Amino acid sequence: MEIIRSKSNQLIKQAKKLQQKKYRKTSYLIEGWHLLEEARQSGAIIQQIFVTEDGLHQLDTKSPVKVVSPEILAELSDSVTPQGVVAQIALPQQELPQVLNGKYLVLEDVQDPGNVGTMIRTADAAGFDGVFVSEKTADIYNMKVLRSMQGSHFHLPVYRVNLPALVEHFQTNQVPIYATTLSKDSVDYKKVNIPSSFALVMGNEGQGISDFIAEHADQLVHIPMPGQAESLNVAVAAGILLFSFI
Amino acid sequence: MEIIRSKSNQLIKQAKKLQQKKYRKTSYLIEGWHLLEEARQSGAIIQQIFVTEDGLHQLDTKSPVKVVSPEILAELSDSVTPQGVVAQIALPQQELPQVLNGKYLVLEDVQDPGNVGTMIRTADAAGFDGVFVSEKTADIYNMKVLRSMQGSHFHLPVYRVNLPALVEHFQTNQVPIYATTLSKDSVDYKKVNIPSSFALVMGNEGQGISDFIAEHADQLVHIPMPGQAESLNVAVAAGILLFSFI
Repeated sequence: MEIIRSKSNQLIKQAKKLQQKKYRKTSYLIEGWHLLEEARQSGAIIQQIFVTEDGLHQLDTKSPVKVVSPEILAELSDSVTPQGVVAQIALPQQELPQVLNGKYLVLEDVQDPGNVGTMIRTADAAGFDGVFVSEKTADIYNMKVLRSMQGSHFHLPVYRVNLPALVEHFQTNQVPIYATTLSKDSVDYKKVNIPSSFALVMGNEGQGISDFIAEHADQLVHIPMPGQAESLNVAVAAGILLFSFI
Repeated sequence: MEIIRSKSNQLIKQAKKLQQKKYRKTSYLIEGWHLLEEARQSGAIIQQIFVTEDGLHQLDTKSPVKVVSPEILAELSDSVTPQGVVAQIALPQQELPQVLNGKYLVLEDVQDPGNVGTMIRTADAAGFDGVFVSEKTADIYNMKVLRSMQGSHFHLPVYRVNLPALVEHFQTNQVPIYATTLSKDSVDYKKVNIPSSFALVMGNEGQGISDFIAEHADQLVHIPMPGQAESLNVAVAAGILLFSFI
């Protein structure tokens, strides 16, 4: 059995590049047995599996496997305690659905990978039908996002979109847009009647939603805070709203 | 004006040690102008302020200030982009209140600093009266916790406690204990009638609440999830429950 032990091996060099966004044109990396199983169940195209020798027995013989040394696995891995397996997955080709009818989460320029991943995981838990992320939102194939997302991108579609085009698409489909603000001028989220089909926009951690979204939203909502904190973490705010609106 | 430029300066060496939990016996470090202002407003004892020369004008002459080089400030700071000020604050002496009557959040062995800080911030936003953290929960004076807490520990008391003693104290004070589980055998959080005084226990990220808490809780609750995600991030779950229960 051949064990790859060299960082200069072409396959390893190619795979390692996928840690950087600019190289993630057609593939991305996932890490750990749980995500690999989720990838398989969702029908994602698994291009290559890198595994250490002691994990090999967990894979069937038909899998596209390369055995690597623990050092090489650590090179491909982003976590402090690598789980013994990293896989290269084909980026899904996702076209915007023609018809929009369901519950959608929209992330406008959310920066923190943990927040992005957590919100997609929460939308998945709440049974949402899809997530749209703006062009400036953290890349969902960033390994930190993947870690906090915990496989939710295998459960519901996540689209990277141009926001003005998305807003127009929602309007054409008569999907009302709710956007969250910190302003008390907007409506208390507990007092809105949410229809069965809608889009909820969460904004950037520091800036909130853009003027463009504020102008085009059908309804601005906020979470009243009786305490002294100035704001909620955006992923916590999203959780409160998503579970209140279902 | 004296500017400290050496890592071997005694004050700097002492302060830097406070980045490690074992040295945080009587003081801890905070970072940034916003937290310093919160500390001041809350009446916390500010033992020492380390500031770079260009931030000096933001401080009054009565403050206990040492001017340091940007390199030394970066030494004391934990963040990638230091904000020009780090302060050494006296650890508050917090005795358990004799009478418990209010809304309390209890964190049982929560590991991730970001989760701990975010939950305390959320309890603050929701107007809770205090937070109790178990002995194995991440130290709240860890700089990562402080960053996600955003000053909330200056708004509401946070007690580190022995959980069995706390449970007894709640029972003596007739404060009912609600604990969160993933089990569908527990009650849907939307179907419980929450009194004005109660304690909500959130468990460890991986293990959830302990058997001890499960046995001593007055009511176990869960958040039904219509989607495919197996669980929610603990801080998101706490946000949903805290804002539902107020």
